[in-house]
Amino acid sequence: MKIDLNCDLGESFGNYKIGLDEEVIKFISSANIACGFHASDPLVMEKTVLLAKNNSVAVGAHPGFPDLVGFGRRNMNVSPAELKAMIVYQLGALDAFCRSNKIKMQHVKPHGAMYNMAAKDEKMALAIAEAIAGYDDSLILLGLSGSQMLLAAEKVGLPFKKEVFADRAYEEDGSLVARTKPGAMIESEEEAIERIISMIRLGKVKAITGKEISVEPDSICVHGDNPKALKFVSAILSRLREENISVEPMGR
Amino acid sequence: MKIDLNCDLGESFGNYKIGLDEEVIKFISSANIACGFHASDPLVMEKTVLLAKNNSVAVGAHPGFPDLVGFGRRNMNVSPAELKAMIVYQLGALDAFCRSNKIKMQHVKPHGAMYNMAAKDEKMALAIAEAIAGYDDSLILLGLSGSQMLLAAEKVGLPFKKEVFADRAYEEDGSLVARTKPGAMIESEEEAIERIISMIRLGKVKAITGKEISVEPDSICVHGDNPKALKFVSAILSRLREENISVEPMGR
Amino acid sequence: MKIDLNCDLGESFGNYKIGLDEEVIKFISSANIACGFHASDPLVMEKTVLLAKNNSVAVGAHPGFPDLVGFGRRNMNVSPAELKAMIVYQLGALDAFCRSNKIKMQHVKPHGAMYNMAAKDEKMALAIAEAIAGYDDSLILLGLSGSQMLLAAEKVGLPFKKEVFADRAYEEDGSLVARTKPGAMIESEEEAIERIISMIRLGKVKAITGKEISVEPDSICVHGDNPKALKFVSAILSRLREENISVEPMGR
Amino acid sequence: MKIDLNCDLGESFGNYKIGLDEEVIKFISSANIACGFHASDPLVMEKTVLLAKNNSVAVGAHPGFPDLVGFGRRNMNVSPAELKAMIVYQLGALDAFCRSNKIKMQHVKPHGAMYNMAAKDEKMALAIAEAIAGYDDSLILLGLSGSQMLLAAEKVGLPFKKEVFADRAYEEDGSLVARTKPGAMIESEEEAIERIISMIRLGKVKAITGKEISVEPDSICVHGDNPKALKFVSAILSRLREENISVEPMGR
Repeated sequence: MKIDLNCDLGESFGNYKIGLDEEVIKFISSANIACGFHASDPLVMEKTVLLAKNNSVAVGAHPGFPDLVGFGRRNMNVSPAELKAMIVYQLGALDAFCRSNKIKMQHVKPHGAMYNMAAKDEKMALAIAEAIAGYDDSLILLGLSGSQMLLAAEKVGLPFKKEVFADRAYEEDGSLVARTKPGAMIESEEEAIERIISMIRLGKVKAITGKEISVEPDSICVHGDNPKALKFVSAILSRLREENISVEPMGR
Repeated sequence: MKIDLNCDLGESFGNYKIGLDEEVIKFISSANIACGFHASDPLVMEKTVLLAKNNSVAVGAHPGFPDLVGFGRRNMNVSPAELKAMIVYQLGALDAFCRSNKIKMQHVKPHGAMYNMAAKDEKMALAIAEAIAGYDDSLILLGLSGSQMLLAAEKVGLPFKKEVFADRAYEEDGSLVARTKPGAMIESEEEAIERIISMIRLGKVKAITGKEISVEPDSICVHGDNPKALKFVSAILSRLREENISVEPMGR
Repeated sequence: MKIDLNCDLGESFGNYKIGLDEEVIKFISSANIACGFHASDPLVMEKTVLLAKNNSVAVGAHPGFPDLVGFGRRNMNVSPAELKAMIVYQLGALDAFCRSNKIKMQHVKPHGAMYNMAAKDEKMALAIAEAIAGYDDSLILLGLSGSQMLLAAEKVGLPFKKEVFADRAYEEDGSLVARTKPGAMIESEEEAIERIISMIRLGKVKAITGKEISVEPDSICVHGDNPKALKFVSAILSRLREENISVEPMGR
Repeated sequence: MKIDLNCDLGESFGNYKIGLDEEVIKFISSANIACGFHASDPLVMEKTVLLAKNNSVAVGAHPGFPDLVGFGRRNMNVSPAELKAMIVYQLGALDAFCRSNKIKMQHVKPHGAMYNMAAKDEKMALAIAEAIAGYDDSLILLGLSGSQMLLAAEKVGLPFKKEVFADRAYEEDGSLVARTKPGAMIESEEEAIERIISMIRLGKVKAITGKEISVEPDSICVHGDNPKALKFVSAILSRLREENISVEPMGR
């Protein structure tokens, strides 16, 4: 059995530092690296791609909306053509650092509001999948399990992988419980880890209603922006090792 | 005999339009396409790469300083590492649209203040040449004839081509006469065209001092941002045809 | 009888020019001047405030979303606190040029997507009205006749004026017919002018359904970004003079 | 005897946090608040002005170059007209939050590269002084003791105050020793504090050559971006109290 652990990396910008990239890189197998629109700048991208390479962590592009002050977390009403072009641009920009450092870009995971909107919006999802496939159809689209993004990837013949969240509750239809609802976050670290193991081993997790639903995760989203998050990733990794579940980049 | 005609293209931005791209594209053989830092945006880049492709015009990246309001024309004191990273980023971004449209990027020509500073600054020139060579060492660096940029390209083993300006006077050392000096601009269209023909046919041009100097141009920089400029390009092209000088992309 | 003619001005940016500001300024009484978020830059703001002053045209701030590439026309999901702060910032920035040039800022008209969203969204409208009132409660909020923005102004005790559009059809409830619907635009210049006169003289206009509705306009929105628009403004002004309707800044 | 302690504040941006503003505010008398060009955003400005108000700390504008990724620390070749307009814009933007919160803006201190360039460049210094005086001639320009900026303020009749640095060595002409020279930084906290006391009490400090020079400081620049800096400010403040030197805003 195997699983991928993915984490957002390279979100610093100029004089501004975010994230414990040098620490969390040791625990993960795939890095989603910001591309300069919602976060990051060319020097940070260079440094982060090198960091991933030196730690044998696979690199993915993490494109976002052109909204630095909002960190790409604010919904924006962009046309499919605008979305497609901004994805192509960001893919190429990150890929340039991969090529310069002689590594192959593995995947693409949209960021923040773009990820959330495209999970539910068929047209946006299709624009994203087409942008990626047009650029390089060997890239993997990493999207929310059960989302429009993965349906779009399937439609355009793009490889895709299913992402799950350790610390989020699910609705019966497999979508994430909105953060505004009570119970949306799994507060207990232990419970979160049990849910992960159940998803990987059994392909099942309990929805917020209590009903068991099917989920077959390829990759688990983890965070590295504070010491508590780091401790959680470390605990997940230990448990996966105990369970003899191998942690590998999604593309291997 | 042959020569390349290059022109800056794709400098519009969002709702803002600059340049008569659809007109001038018919007269040139190489397009320097802005990459989103000093001008352009992803949609404009997409459209401009397609325009070049459809007119069989070779595509080059035209990276600039991150100074949209100054159109990349203001000197900025950036470190070699910053410069290198911002070149890699912009190359990749433009190349993404080339790859998506199944064409090969031909060359790189830095824009405005970056071009002028690197023409004289050895460290900046080297940073630019290394950035390009690290990304793709088959790309051609297009730089001012006799500039530090071309020396840097030679040093790192990067292909390069020599650019001349039809409407600018030269010093005896082959550098451009500063715009602030009287006589810096060649005002007469006829004289400008004679100078071009002399440079191509004889490898010679008269410096502002009256002394004849050697210049072996690979590409002539032309403009397409107003009707007068268009008329001038058209006149240059007619004369080149009369002289049986073939107009071809610099990389052919 | 009197009316105000307002027009968006100062939307150029750096090397990019938009609008025939020097022409249209002669026909209008109030200028909505962009504040550097969706358009404009400090130099353009300086120049436009001076242009208005020299033509005895009243100055208003025209704040927009921080979306230069989208020209402030894309809906953005900002919080009321973010919206309030971005309004205060832009008001102060434009007012600085008014103060430096010894004129009094007259009004505020939100731009594009911000205007359209706040016309229907009570919370956004309130954030805008509170931002303005907190900065200077003698400023006039110019908003769509019948919109949430004017209700919000009333609520916080801010002066407001009602804007109408010469070239747009109205629903029975006084809202604008969506541009996507047939008949949304009044194509005939003559008909548009008749409608204006009817609105000013009689306080009435025919809705798209044919039913006559009440509208009491304080200001008519006109455009100056192309020669046809200029001709239309000129025609409106001529007719208003024939009708002895005085054209004056809304704050007089 | 009295002195002002000034510190750069409000340099966070969106999701990015910099500085221990809530801590250092307790030790200082004047805050230089970033205006959104080299750092900060409207929400951060709102919050920082309130923080200063609630701690009875005087507010100054801290305008910088439009270079967020470079944090305003990279020299930019801007014209006097551009500089003047970008100062006016930023003054108004920050002042808007002061007006909304019913406090009076006290001073202006240019940031980073703008401060350093204008210290030596007469034209830039004059553009800054004229911009401030044109906006509000009761504002104080805070500049390096002995710099072109203070001469420019004198020339245009703008109030000004002289700033010194506790941790920097001085040349005999009163300019700062370049950071690249050995001995440029005063490493010992004790020595730095002795120098401050000597400057305040005696108007004298030892230049790097050993010669005693005259300096009459109005304000000391301190930092609050890390725990060590905080400890240093606290030590300065304690010593000033022991010496019965009152710490007060420069404008009182």
